[in-house]
Amino acid sequence: MDPIAEVKMYEDSGDLLPLMVGGPGPDTLQNCKEIFTKATASVLETETDPTQAFRYADEQGDQEYRDQLAKFLSNEYKDIVTSSELMVTAGATQGLHFLASLLFHKHKVAFVEDPTYYAAHTMLRYDLEMKVVPVPTDADGIDTNVLDKLLSEHRPKSFTVTPEQPFWAMIYVIPVFNNPAGQCYSKERCCDLVRHARQHDILVVAEDIYNLVYYGENIPKRLLAYDNKSHPDYMGNVVSNCTFSKILAPGLRLGWLEAPERVLCVLKKSNVSWSAGSLNHYASKLAAAALKLGLQQKHVQTVRQIYKNRMTFMCETLRKGLPPGATFTQPQGGFFVWVKLPEAVDALHLLRMAAKKYKISFLPGFCTSPSGGYKNYVRLSISFCNQATLSKGLDAFCSALRDFIPGDTE
Amino acid sequence: MDPIAEVKMYEDSGDLLPLMVGGPGPDTLQNCKEIFTKATASVLETETDPTQAFRYADEQGDQEYRDQLAKFLSNEYKDIVTSSELMVTAGATQGLHFLASLLFHKHKVAFVEDPTYYAAHTMLRYDLEMKVVPVPTDADGIDTNVLDKLLSEHRPKSFTVTPEQPFWAMIYVIPVFNNPAGQCYSKERCCDLVRHARQHDILVVAEDIYNLVYYGENIPKRLLAYDNKSHPDYMGNVVSNCTFSKILAPGLRLGWLEAPERVLCVLKKSNVSWSAGSLNHYASKLAAAALKLGLQQKHVQTVRQIYKNRMTFMCETLRKGLPPGATFTQPQGGFFVWVKLPEAVDALHLLRMAAKKYKISFLPGFCTSPSGGYKNYVRLSISFCNQATLSKGLDAFCSALRDFIPGDTE
Repeated sequence: MDPIAEVKMYEDSGDLLPLMVGGPGPDTLQNCKEIFTKATASVLETETDPTQAFRYADEQGDQEYRDQLAKFLSNEYKDIVTSSELMVTAGATQGLHFLASLLFHKHKVAFVEDPTYYAAHTMLRYDLEMKVVPVPTDADGIDTNVLDKLLSEHRPKSFTVTPEQPFWAMIYVIPVFNNPAGQCYSKERCCDLVRHARQHDILVVAEDIYNLVYYGENIPKRLLAYDNKSHPDYMGNVVSNCTFSKILAPGLRLGWLEAPERVLCVLKKSNVSWSAGSLNHYASKLAAAALKLGLQQKHVQTVRQIYKNRMTFMCETLRKGLPPGATFTQPQGGFFVWVKLPEAVDALHLLRMAAKKYKISFLPGFCTSPSGGYKNYVRLSISFCNQATLSKGLDAFCSALRDFIPGDTE
Repeated sequence: MDPIAEVKMYEDSGDLLPLMVGGPGPDTLQNCKEIFTKATASVLETETDPTQAFRYADEQGDQEYRDQLAKFLSNEYKDIVTSSELMVTAGATQGLHFLASLLFHKHKVAFVEDPTYYAAHTMLRYDLEMKVVPVPTDADGIDTNVLDKLLSEHRPKSFTVTPEQPFWAMIYVIPVFNNPAGQCYSKERCCDLVRHARQHDILVVAEDIYNLVYYGENIPKRLLAYDNKSHPDYMGNVVSNCTFSKILAPGLRLGWLEAPERVLCVLKKSNVSWSAGSLNHYASKLAAAALKLGLQQKHVQTVRQIYKNRMTFMCETLRKGLPPGATFTQPQGGFFVWVKLPEAVDALHLLRMAAKKYKISFLPGFCTSPSGGYKNYVRLSISFCNQATLSKGLDAFCSALRDFIPGDTE
């Protein structure tokens, strides 16, 4: 069986305790009933013309949605977000697919972190048939020295910037609370990346979907803020691709792009947009109402605290339970702990055994690696299970690992 | 100005009476408030676990959604529709884009009717960069004799069927209440098309979005039903791409594909699906509830009658008001009347004048033609305006036309 298909099989299995899944579970979705009851009433009862919520809507997204969102994000980011730079999407997956297929689908190059989000590099490579080039990462983020060489190597000699094709390649990155690695890019790395993007005419697509799930005092600055408009070299080389999936409800399939005008105008002028209008209008009206009523703001505080507690708990449990040779760094936000196992351990083999004997699932590192590396890593998620279930799952994981590493049983 | 951009500008103008728009307007969306109030309460109040509506959900779509939909469609179509052959989409645009980008994006061929839906042929050509080949049509549908020649001409010699690439090309058609032409394919033409598709290893993507908006006694048979499973040559060469946009609410961005297993398995195994799960889950739960409560069934009857009355009214008005040399055939369903003007009339010039002098908009035929033809045609829509507004719009249209055709003033 194809290893990816095998991982999907474990992911879909209802019999396994899911340390694999990177989405909110029943506990952090509990308040959605109240939120959506109130938001629906607000849209249907208090709007002057409730039929507006059911029509084809503006390609860029409903004005009220973008206004409410801009206000919310400005407050959360402690930075200015303007509604004219926001565009509605049907979630971050659709956002990435839409953007990549419109701006880059002609066998163009997508540079990606190694490791990265598993379904993104496979989507770019297989669904969109882009040329995916892995770039190594370290604790500070993507290796911009290697990137610089790769950019010079891959740039087509014939390329010149036009309004329709402002970029010859994209870089897909997760600079804040990286999936799977958990780290944030250093300030220097962010500056470097933006500089390279400007210099080499490439678009950086930053997936900023965990930013609001931070556990420290302050929210890390999103990459887009480093692409400073007042800088003399500013052209608009960074897009922030975001979603309500982690901070509200993935079932909503709602997100947004924050993007410079030269990117937005290509998206808005697309025939997909011409045909569909707003990519998820009714859902965006509900989200706008949840923001207007302050429900989203309250909810993100609540779930942030829950995830923070779980993350602390997971890391404490792992520190006690992991056998020697297994290491990790505690992330300051997001959903994942990225555990490095001894070199000899193939995490897919471990998963097979753990699924069978301990009835748990987790993500083996190879899925996240466009170069086929990270075989001895696993990604454990705090997002779906509550603390009691996590506790069982982590005990099982540590036991599986001890079984698996020869000579390491106590 | 690019002529397409110019047409979009007229479409977006709030100042013009919209005979252009092919979507429900305030009158036929009025009941949505009640429908969605009840559907939301059903999902949030009566479900055992309402958090299910907010999670990532099955790639193919929620089981209840597919079950309810299968029951509804079986009843409407008077034919068997099985839930295992349905897949949720975020509307017909997303359905077509998803399907085409996954199965055909490598510069493959898309045969399209000439004329066809304007945003579909442009999406295939420009957004997805497929090779779009126009096929002429007549009153019975796509010209299968010409198609046969084109298929033999374009088939790559090297092509062999594999599970991942079962087709070397697609045909995009609207066989029932065609957009813009309004006609239905004859039975013979449907049989021919299916035979060609099987023989030449191509996929027919039938956009079946107006089927339920029929004005005669019986609903026309959808093309997929001609791809008979009991036929010895059956392999599964037809997909039916559908939406709730015309029968409920476009703002919902919800639709479905009815497709053979060999197509569905490629879509379900895509990385887009892996990442997003169900392409519009919460909306699908609302639609499932609206179906379970019988609200959608009642609504489609109501709007069908409204549209039928409007269509009768529009055709009567045009028969009285159109100057000699302008002709049309009254459609038995759907939203559009396709008016042929005298050869000398360029409908874009007519639109310019009519927008300025009479404050109306309509679709000039050239937009619908992948070959750049049909310049002297216009598409008029009954969908957005109520009868009183339609009346004004049609008087204005006929006046504009009489102004425009020299020597034809009364």
